[in-house]
Amino acid sequence: MVFIKIRRFYLIEKIEQIRDARWFSNLTTLIIIAYASVLGFKTIGDVETNYSLFLQFADAFVTIYFIFEIAIKMVAEKKFVNFFKSGWNLFDFTIVVITLLPLESSGYAAVARLLRIFRVLRLFTARPELKAIIDMLIKAIPAIIDIVILMFIIFYIYAIVGNFFFEKLPSGLWSDFLVSMLTLFRVLTFEDWTDVMYEAMEVYPWAWAYFVSFVIIAAFVFFNLFVAVIIGEMQKLNEADMKQEIHEDSKKLDILLNEVKHLRQELKQIKKSKD
Amino acid sequence: MVFIKIRRFYLIEKIEQIRDARWFSNLTTLIIIAYASVLGFKTIGDVETNYSLFLQFADAFVTIYFIFEIAIKMVAEKKFVNFFKSGWNLFDFTIVVITLLPLESSGYAAVARLLRIFRVLRLFTARPELKAIIDMLIKAIPAIIDIVILMFIIFYIYAIVGNFFFEKLPSGLWSDFLVSMLTLFRVLTFEDWTDVMYEAMEVYPWAWAYFVSFVIIAAFVFFNLFVAVIIGEMQKLNEADMKQEIHEDSKKLDILLNEVKHLRQELKQIKKSKD
Amino acid sequence: MVFIKIRRFYLIEKIEQIRDARWFSNLTTLIIIAYASVLGFKTIGDVETNYSLFLQFADAFVTIYFIFEIAIKMVAEKKFVNFFKSGWNLFDFTIVVITLLPLESSGYAAVARLLRIFRVLRLFTARPELKAIIDMLIKAIPAIIDIVILMFIIFYIYAIVGNFFFEKLPSGLWSDFLVSMLTLFRVLTFEDWTDVMYEAMEVYPWAWAYFVSFVIIAAFVFFNLFVAVIIGEMQKLNEADMKQEIHEDSKKLDILLNEVKHLRQELKQIKKSKD
Amino acid sequence: MVFIKIRRFYLIEKIEQIRDARWFSNLTTLIIIAYASVLGFKTIGDVETNYSLFLQFADAFVTIYFIFEIAIKMVAEKKFVNFFKSGWNLFDFTIVVITLLPLESSGYAAVARLLRIFRVLRLFTARPELKAIIDMLIKAIPAIIDIVILMFIIFYIYAIVGNFFFEKLPSGLWSDFLVSMLTLFRVLTFEDWTDVMYEAMEVYPWAWAYFVSFVIIAAFVFFNLFVAVIIGEMQKLNEADMKQEIHEDSKKLDILLNEVKHLRQELKQIKKSKD
Repeated sequence: MVFIKIRRFYLIEKIEQIRDARWFSNLTTLIIIAYASVLGFKTIGDVETNYSLFLQFADAFVTIYFIFEIAIKMVAEKKFVNFFKSGWNLFDFTIVVITLLPLESSGYAAVARLLRIFRVLRLFTARPELKAIIDMLIKAIPAIIDIVILMFIIFYIYAIVGNFFFEKLPSGLWSDFLVSMLTLFRVLTFEDWTDVMYEAMEVYPWAWAYFVSFVIIAAFVFFNLFVAVIIGEMQKLNEADMKQEIHEDSKKLDILLNEVKHLRQELKQIKKSKD
Repeated sequence: MVFIKIRRFYLIEKIEQIRDARWFSNLTTLIIIAYASVLGFKTIGDVETNYSLFLQFADAFVTIYFIFEIAIKMVAEKKFVNFFKSGWNLFDFTIVVITLLPLESSGYAAVARLLRIFRVLRLFTARPELKAIIDMLIKAIPAIIDIVILMFIIFYIYAIVGNFFFEKLPSGLWSDFLVSMLTLFRVLTFEDWTDVMYEAMEVYPWAWAYFVSFVIIAAFVFFNLFVAVIIGEMQKLNEADMKQEIHEDSKKLDILLNEVKHLRQELKQIKKSKD
Repeated sequence: MVFIKIRRFYLIEKIEQIRDARWFSNLTTLIIIAYASVLGFKTIGDVETNYSLFLQFADAFVTIYFIFEIAIKMVAEKKFVNFFKSGWNLFDFTIVVITLLPLESSGYAAVARLLRIFRVLRLFTARPELKAIIDMLIKAIPAIIDIVILMFIIFYIYAIVGNFFFEKLPSGLWSDFLVSMLTLFRVLTFEDWTDVMYEAMEVYPWAWAYFVSFVIIAAFVFFNLFVAVIIGEMQKLNEADMKQEIHEDSKKLDILLNEVKHLRQELKQIKKSKD
Repeated sequence: MVFIKIRRFYLIEKIEQIRDARWFSNLTTLIIIAYASVLGFKTIGDVETNYSLFLQFADAFVTIYFIFEIAIKMVAEKKFVNFFKSGWNLFDFTIVVITLLPLESSGYAAVARLLRIFRVLRLFTARPELKAIIDMLIKAIPAIIDIVILMFIIFYIYAIVGNFFFEKLPSGLWSDFLVSMLTLFRVLTFEDWTDVMYEAMEVYPWAWAYFVSFVIIAAFVFFNLFVAVIIGEMQKLNEADMKQEIHEDSKKLDILLNEVKHLRQELKQIKKSKD
C-alpha cells in the first residue's frame, strides 16, 4: 500500500517536471502555430477541396493533443480543485471543452469552423512571456478607466450636438446618436475627416470650429490616455529597482546613526569612569 | 434656544456626511449616465414620439434631483458664501440654473433641448477622480502655451505664403487667410494632404518643398508639444517620490557627520586628560 | 567733460533697463500680433481695396517701431560691436533691413508684400521663452543627425528599387528618382498609401512586401528619431537635478569614511599609550 | 631578415592608422554619397543616354576604391582570419564581391544595375555612429519579440473571422487569409479604413464592432510595442549611469558600518583593559 503511494508520488513529480519543462511549452507553441497555418491556408483557392482529409486529420490530432496536455496539467496539481483556481487554467479548459462539442455533426458546421480559431488563443498559456504581457495589460486598465470616462463624455456631448445640427445631411453620417458616435471615432483616427467637415460646412459655415475643436481636444486626451500608461510603467520600474536600493541605503544609515550614538555613550562612560 | 442650535449643528454634520459619502457620488453618477442614455436613444428612430411622456418624466426627475443635490452641498457649508468660493461649485450651480430657465415654454425649445446635454458635464463634479484629471490638464496649460505660440507662427507664415501663391487654385482651399489656416490644419493631420499638394504642384512644380517642409516642421513641433507635457509629468513624479528619500538620506548623512565630529572631539579630550 | 560722460552712462543704463523690461517685450509682442492680424485679414474679401490707407499706415508704423526698437538694442550695448555678436540680434537686424529695401517702388511689389510676413518671425526675439525653445530645438539637431542619415539610406534604397520596377505605372508616381522619394514620403505619412500599393500589385503581385516592409521599417526608425529626442531631454533632467544630490551624498560618505578612519587611528594611539 | 620584419610591422601600423582615421571614413562617406547621387540622377529624363561614359567611369572608380578600402582593412589586421570574425567586415566583403560579379556582360544587366544600389548600405560601415545605431536596433529586437507574437495572434484571429464573414464582398479585400491580413494592416494604419468598414456594414450591420474593436486593440498593443522599446532604453540609461553611483554609495555604507563596528569593539577592549 505504502509502496503504491510512493510510486504514485514519484509519477506526479515526473508529470510536474514535464508540465514546467521548456521543451513541452515549445512543443505546444509549435503545434498551435502549425495548426494556425493550416487553418489559414485552407482559405486560399482550392486548397480546402483537395486536402480535405489532411485537414480533418490535423484537426483530430490537435484536439487529442490538447486533451492530453490539459490532462497533464490537471494530474500535476496536488489537489484536483487547485487546477480550477487559476484564471489561465479555466481559460484553457473552456477552449478545449468548446472545441469538443459535436457542433459539426449537429448542423452548426460554420460555427464549429469559426470556434476552432480560438484555439490559437492557447498561445497565451503556452508561452509564459505572453501570459506576463497580458497580465500587465490587464493591470493597466484601472489606471486608464477615468480617462476612458472622460473620453466618453467628450464623445457624448459632440455626438449629441452633431446629431442635433447635422442629422439631415445627405451622407447620413449623423442620422442618430450611435451613428454619430461612430462618425466621431472616425474623425478621431483622422480618417477622411475633412470630407465629413466640408459636407457640414456647406450648410453650417461655422462647422469647422466643431471639428477642429473635437480633433484637438479628443486627440490631446487620447494621447494622455497612453501617456498615463507609460508613466505608470515607469513608476513601477523606478519603484521595483532603484528605489529599493535607495531604501536599503536609508536603512543602513539608520543603523549607522544608532551605532555611532552607542559609541558616543560608551565614550562618555569611559570618560566618567576616568574622572 | 441652545437646544435648537445644537440640533441644527447635528443636522449639518449629517448632511456633510451625506455630501462626502461614496454612495452619494455613485448615485449621482448613475442618475447622470441613465439620463444621458435616455437623451441618446431619444434620437434613434421613432423613440421620441412613442415615449414622449417617459422622457418628460426623466427630465423632471433629473431637474429635481439636481436641485436637491446642490441644496445639500449648500447647506453642508458652514458659511453659505463658502459654497461659491469653489470653482467646481460655481460650475455645478451654473448648469443647474441654466436648465431651470423656462426656455421650452418661451419658444426656444430647440435651444433648451441642446442645453440639457450639458448636464452630462456634471459627471466631472460627481467623480473626484475626474475632477483631479481636469485640474491636472488645466495645470499643464502654462507649460505648453509657448509651444502653442510657436505653432501659431508656423501656421501663420505658411498660411500667408500659401494664400499668396495658391489663392486662385480651383479647389478654393487657399481662397483667404482663414481658409488657408484650416487647410494647413488638415495637412498637419495628414488628411488627404497629397491631394492638396498635387493640385498645387500642377501650377507650381516646387510646391512639394512647401508641403514637405510644413509637414516635417509642424509635426516635429506638434510632437514636442506633447513631449513637453510628458516630461513635465515625469519631473513631478521624480520630485514627489524618489527625490524626497534621497533628500532625507542627505540629511541623515549630515547628522552622522556631526555625530562623528563630536566623537572625535571627545576622544581628543580623553587623550588630553590622559596626557 | 566728465559730467557729460556720467550723464551718458546714466542714459545708457536707462536704455538698458527699457530693453530688458517685461513691458517693452510685451509691447513688441502686441504690436507684432496686431500687425500680423492686419496682414492676415487683408486677404479676406474686399478688405484690401477699402482699407488701403489704413494698411499703409500700419505698415509705416511697424517699420518705424522696429527701427526704434533695434536702435534701443544697439545703444544699450556698451560696445557697438557687441550687438552683432549675438545670433538673435543679427536675425533681428536682417529682418529690419530687408523690410526697409525700397522694393515696392521698384516694381517688386509682390515680393515686398511677401517679405513683410517675415516680420512675424520677430516674435521669437520679442519673447525670451520662445528664444529658449528655438535654442533647445537647435541643440537637439546633432542628436538626430545620424538617424536622419539612416532615414535617408532607407528612402534612397526604396526609391531606387521603386523607380526600377514601378517606373512605367500609369499614375507616374515613380517616374524618376526624386518623384519616387516624394511618393515614399507620402507612404510614410500613411496618406492613401494603399492606392499606391494596389496599383503596383496589379503588375507585380509581390509589391505588398515592398510597401509593408517600408511602412514598418521607416515608421519604426522615424518613431525612434523622436524617442531619441525624448531620451535626450530626460537625460538632461536627471543629470541636472537628482544626480547632483546623489553625487553630493557620495562625497559626504567619503568624508565620513575618512573621519571614521581617523577616529580608529586615534583610538589605537590611546590604546598604545595605555599599554 | 629582422629589418624587413620591423619595416613590415611599421607599415601595418601605418595602415592601421589610416583605417581608423576620421578623414578616411569621411572620404569613404563622401564617395558613397556622390556615387548615390549619380545613381539617383541617372533616372531623371535623358541623363542616362547623354552621360553614359561618365556613369561608367564613376562605376569603375567606386569599384576600385571599394577594393582598395577593403584591402586596407584586411592588411591592417594582425591575423588575416580576424578580418572575417567581425559581422560588419563580412557585410562589407559580401557587398564588394557581389558588385564584382560579371553580371552585366552575362546578360543580367538589369539585376547588376539593381545590385549596385546596395553599395549605399556601405554608409553603415563608413560611419561608426550608424554602426552603433544599427547595433542598438538589433539589440532591441528580443525586447519586442513577444509583443510581435501578440500582434500576430490579434491579426490572425481577426483575419480568419474577417475572411469567414466578408469573403464574398465585391471589393475582394477579404478573398483569402493573406489578403485579409494585408487589409487589416491597412486598417491599422487608419488608411481609408472606413471605406472597408462601410462596405462590410452594408451586409453585416454589426461590422462596426469588428472594426472599432480591432482599431482600439491593435493600436493599443502597437503603441505598447514602441513604448516597450522606450522603457528599455530608459532602463539602460538609468542602470548605466545613476544606478552605479547609488550602488557605490551602498558599498561605501557597508564599509562604514564595518568600520564603526570595529571602533566599538576596540572601545570595549579599552574599557575591559581598564576594569
